[in-house]
Amino acid sequence: MTDKKINLEEYKTNFPNSRKVYKDVEGLRVPYRAITISDTSGEDREFHVYDTTGPYTEPSFEIDLQVGLPKHRYEWITERANSYQSDKRFKDNVTQLVYAKNGIITKEMEFAAARENSFTDSENIVTAELVRSEIASGRAIIPANIKHPELEPMVIGKKFLTKVNSNIGNSPVKSDIEEELDKLLWSVRWGADTVMDLSTGKNIFETREAIIRNSPVPIGTVPIYEALEKVNGKAEELNYEIFRDVIISQAEQGVDYFTIHAGLRLSFIPTTTNRLTGIVSRGGSIIAKWCLAHHKENFLYDNFDDLCDIMKKYDVSFSLGDGLRPGSIADANDEAQFLELKTLGELTARAQQKDVQVMIEGPGHVPLNKIKENVTLEEEYCNEAPFYTLGPLVTDIAPGYDHITSAIGAANIGSYGTSLLCYVTPKEHLGLPNKDDVKDGLVAYKIAAHASDISKGHDFAVQRDNELSKARFEFRWLDQFNLSLDPYKSKEFHDETLPQESAKSAHFCSMCGPNFCSMKITQDIRDYAATHNIKDIKIAVEEGMKEKSKQFAETGGKIYIKK
Amino acid sequence: MTDKKINLEEYKTNFPNSRKVYKDVEGLRVPYRAITISDTSGEDREFHVYDTTGPYTEPSFEIDLQVGLPKHRYEWITERANSYQSDKRFKDNVTQLVYAKNGIITKEMEFAAARENSFTDSENIVTAELVRSEIASGRAIIPANIKHPELEPMVIGKKFLTKVNSNIGNSPVKSDIEEELDKLLWSVRWGADTVMDLSTGKNIFETREAIIRNSPVPIGTVPIYEALEKVNGKAEELNYEIFRDVIISQAEQGVDYFTIHAGLRLSFIPTTTNRLTGIVSRGGSIIAKWCLAHHKENFLYDNFDDLCDIMKKYDVSFSLGDGLRPGSIADANDEAQFLELKTLGELTARAQQKDVQVMIEGPGHVPLNKIKENVTLEEEYCNEAPFYTLGPLVTDIAPGYDHITSAIGAANIGSYGTSLLCYVTPKEHLGLPNKDDVKDGLVAYKIAAHASDISKGHDFAVQRDNELSKARFEFRWLDQFNLSLDPYKSKEFHDETLPQESAKSAHFCSMCGPNFCSMKITQDIRDYAATHNIKDIKIAVEEGMKEKSKQFAETGGKIYIKK
Repeated sequence: MTDKKINLEEYKTNFPNSRKVYKDVEGLRVPYRAITISDTSGEDREFHVYDTTGPYTEPSFEIDLQVGLPKHRYEWITERANSYQSDKRFKDNVTQLVYAKNGIITKEMEFAAARENSFTDSENIVTAELVRSEIASGRAIIPANIKHPELEPMVIGKKFLTKVNSNIGNSPVKSDIEEELDKLLWSVRWGADTVMDLSTGKNIFETREAIIRNSPVPIGTVPIYEALEKVNGKAEELNYEIFRDVIISQAEQGVDYFTIHAGLRLSFIPTTTNRLTGIVSRGGSIIAKWCLAHHKENFLYDNFDDLCDIMKKYDVSFSLGDGLRPGSIADANDEAQFLELKTLGELTARAQQKDVQVMIEGPGHVPLNKIKENVTLEEEYCNEAPFYTLGPLVTDIAPGYDHITSAIGAANIGSYGTSLLCYVTPKEHLGLPNKDDVKDGLVAYKIAAHASDISKGHDFAVQRDNELSKARFEFRWLDQFNLSLDPYKSKEFHDETLPQESAKSAHFCSMCGPNFCSMKITQDIRDYAATHNIKDIKIAVEEGMKEKSKQFAETGGKIYIKK
Repeated sequence: MTDKKINLEEYKTNFPNSRKVYKDVEGLRVPYRAITISDTSGEDREFHVYDTTGPYTEPSFEIDLQVGLPKHRYEWITERANSYQSDKRFKDNVTQLVYAKNGIITKEMEFAAARENSFTDSENIVTAELVRSEIASGRAIIPANIKHPELEPMVIGKKFLTKVNSNIGNSPVKSDIEEELDKLLWSVRWGADTVMDLSTGKNIFETREAIIRNSPVPIGTVPIYEALEKVNGKAEELNYEIFRDVIISQAEQGVDYFTIHAGLRLSFIPTTTNRLTGIVSRGGSIIAKWCLAHHKENFLYDNFDDLCDIMKKYDVSFSLGDGLRPGSIADANDEAQFLELKTLGELTARAQQKDVQVMIEGPGHVPLNKIKENVTLEEEYCNEAPFYTLGPLVTDIAPGYDHITSAIGAANIGSYGTSLLCYVTPKEHLGLPNKDDVKDGLVAYKIAAHASDISKGHDFAVQRDNELSKARFEFRWLDQFNLSLDPYKSKEFHDETLPQESAKSAHFCSMCGPNFCSMKITQDIRDYAATHNIKDIKIAVEEGMKEKSKQFAETGGKIYIKK
C-alpha cells in the first residue's frame, strides 16, 4: 500500500469558507464543520453542520495512511474494561447494549448524543440518556467494535438524524487497495456516516485492514464474501467453522457491523421460484446455494447463538441481511421477503436477549405505494430495531440514474422511520462505482436523509434549509453555495451563466435578469411591513397599501435598487 | 432563424434498436416507439413505449424548421367547425370541455385516449369515453388550441399517465431563437409531454412562433412576461388592455395553455410579509407589484370573465398560477399559499362554467410530510381540476441537485394524484439550463412520473419495469440498456467497467464477476421448480430439495454454466 495516487492535500482542505471545529461537551471533543457566512447585517458569523470527516480536515493533522488515525477511543475502552472487569454482567460482553440495559451511559453514548445537537444549542435536545434508553430498548445502536479505537461513535435509530451508508470495496474484476482507501476518504468527505467494505477480490484482508485503521466512521462487512473466497468461490463447500474463523478474524480487526444472512431459511427458497428476478442478494444466493446443495437448514440460522457469543465480546453489531429482498418492482413485498423479515424478528429477539446490538436490512426495489408496509412490518416483527435499507428503487426503468430512483424511495422510507440509508450510485446494475459515482450517490442520499429529517421535524436539520433559503433570498450567493451540500457544483453552475465576479454580489440571477426580480419585491413589501409595524392583515390592506402605492408613485415605481 | 446549429440528423435518429411506429385506432395514427428486444427464446420481438417525439423520428420525414410540422390536426378542427357552425352551443366556444359536456367525443379525445393504452392491448383500458367524461367533470383537460394544428393531443388528468412539462425560453441575459428551438426538439426527444416557453428576453414573439410551429406537444406560456416587456419592465404601467392584447395575439399563434396569476388578490399580499422567502413566483411578484403600486385588486381577477370569453374561442386552457407558492421549506403550506389556492378554486368554477379547461399550478418547496395536504386541498377547493406542480423540492440545501430534491417531491405528489409535473433542472436557482440540464431534468421527471404511475398501478407503466427487470435477470444487457430511459448512458456506464463486446452477452456483471452470480442461482432454482412442477412449498422442501442437492453433488456443485 502506498499513497502515491491519493491526493492527501485535497482531503486536508476543507470545503469553501469552512473550518473544522470541536465543541467541548463534558470534556469530549465533538466535531462540526463551521461555515462562515455573512449575516444580513454584513457581519460574518458561523453556521455549523454535522461532520463525518474525522481528523482529515484538521489542518494540523498529519495524515499517514500506513499508521492510521489516532486511537482516541482507546482510553474510553480500556478505562471501561478496568472499571467493570470484576462485574460478571460484563464478562465476555462489552456491547453498548449491555451497558445501556444496566443503566450505564458510555462515552460512546455521550459523544454520539452530543453530535446530534446543533453547535449553538446550549441545551441538548438529544441527551446521552436518550441515546442510552433507545439503545436499551433495541430501537437504536452505536456500531462500535472495541477493536476500532479510531472511531468517532455515531448513533443509528429513528429518533436520531437519518444516516447514510456508502459501499466501497474491490471486486474480482477490479482490485486496488489504494483505490478503496481513496474511496473511504472520499466517502467521509462527502458525508458518509458509515461505510461498508464489500471487497470480493484479491487482498480482502489487507484492504479491510487499511480501511478500518483509517476510518473515523463505523465499518461494516459481509463476512460470507471472505468465507467464500476461502473455499475458492464454491458455496457448497462452506461450513460454519470456516465462517466462524472469518468473523473472529474480522472482529479482531475492528469491523463494527456484520451483515449476516441468518434469516434465509431452507424452506423459504421455493417461494422465490415464481419471482420475476429471484434472489438478487449476493449473500442470499450464496446461502441459498449452500442450502440447496446440502438440503440443510442455513448454517447461520443454526449457529446464531454462537455468533452472538462471539460478537458480544467485541461489540460487533448485527446487520441482519435480507437475502430475499426483491430485485424488481414486481417482486416487492412478496411472501419470500416477509417470511425472511419475520425470521429476522425472531433472531433480533435472540440477539438482543444476548445483549448484541441489531439492525435490520431492507429492500431494494419497492414501488412508492408499498414502501410504508416495509417499515410497519419491520417495526412490528423486529422490536423497532433500526431499519437499514438499500434505497429502495421506486422503478426499474432507469439504470444509469438509480441514485435518483432510489433516493426517491430512500427519502420516503426515511420519513417513515428508517434510520440508515444505504446509498445506490448511478452505476448500480451496470458497473463498479468510481469516485464521481460515490460522490453522486452520497449527495443523492444526503438529500434523501435530510429530506426525511425535515419531514420528521428534526430542528438541527431544518436550520440548514432556513439558513440557505435566507441567503438565497438576500442574494448572498457565496453563502448559498457554501451552505449547500456541494459548494463546488453550485458555484460552478452559477459561473456557467454569470461568470463575472460581480455577479456573486449582484441582487439578481440569470433567470430573470437585472430588471426584474421577484425576491426584491418581497423584501420591499417586508421592509414596508417592518417599518410600519403591520400586525393585522386588514390594516395592511386598508391603510398600509394605500400609503405604499403613494410611495411607489413618488419614487417612479422603482423598487429595484442595487446596493 | 436558421438551423445551422441544430443537429437535425440527431433528431431523426431513433434511440438504439428503436423505430417509430403507428397503431391504427379507428383511423387515427397513434404514435409509439417500438424497441426491439430478444425474447427469452432468442427470437426478436418489439416492446412499445409512449412516444412524444412527433414526426421528427420518422425516417421519411423531412424536417424543415422554417415551415414547421405538418398540420395533421387541421382537418379535425375544420370538420368540427363545419359540423357545428349552426349549433349555438358552440358559438364562439370550441373547447374540448364544451364538446365533452355535450356528450361529443372529439378526435382529440380519441387520439389522447388511444395513446394511454399499451400497443398490444386489443381492448383499450383508457377509452375515448373515459377521456370525455373526465374532461366533462373538470378532472382532465386536453390542452389543444385550434390554432395549433401541428399538435398531437394528450390528456392531463389523474386517471391517466402522469405527464411531464419542460420549461424552455430565453432570458434577458441569454437569448437565441435557434437555441430555444433546439431545446424544444431535445425536450420532446427526452419525453416532455408539454413544453412551456418562458421567454423574457428579446424576440419573444418570433421565438414563440418558431416553437409552436415546430411543436408536436402542447405549448404553454406566461403571458404576463410578454405584457411586461410591452411596458419596458415597469410592472406598475401594466393594465388589462395591454394584457388582453397579448393573450389574443398569443392565442392566435396557437399557445395551448396560459399561466394566469388571477388568484393573487390584493388582500393576500400582507400575508407574505412574515415569510422567509416572500414571493418567489415571477408572475406573482409582477402582480403584487402592480397591486401595491395602484392599491387595486389584481386586474386579472377583476377581468377573469373576459379572459374566459377570449380563451374559449381558441380553446386555450387555463393553468391557474400560484403566484404565492412557497419559495422555501419554511414557507410551505402557509396562509398565503392556501388563500390563493382557495381563490383558484373559485376561479376554476367560473372558468368551467364558461366551458374553459382549467388546471391548477402548485408548489414549489414542500417537505415530505406536507405534500399530501397540497393535493387534498387542491382537490377540495378546485373540483379536482388537474394539478400541475413544480417539483416540489423536499429540501432547500442542495442547489446543483434540485432535479433530485424535486423529483423526490414530484414522485410523491404524483402518486397522490398530481397529473402534470413541471421539471426542475440541476441549474435551478443558479443559472439557465443548457441542453444537458434539460435532459437531466427530464430524465429525473420521467422517473418521478413513472414511479407515480406504477404506484397507482397503471398497467402500461408497470409493463416496462417488468420487461426491463426480466432482461436484467436474463443477462440481456443490450435489452436492459434499450428498455431504459437513457440507453446511451446505461450502455456507457457498463462499458466503463467491462468495455469488451463479449461482456454484453456475458452472464455476469462487474459487481460479482464471472465466478459467482446471484441471478444465476435463482434461474437454477426456478428451472428446477419448472421441470418438477413444484406447487407446494413443503413438497419443494421435503422432496425437491433433496433431489436437488443430489444433483448438485453429481455436477460437482456447478450451477454457473455459460451459454
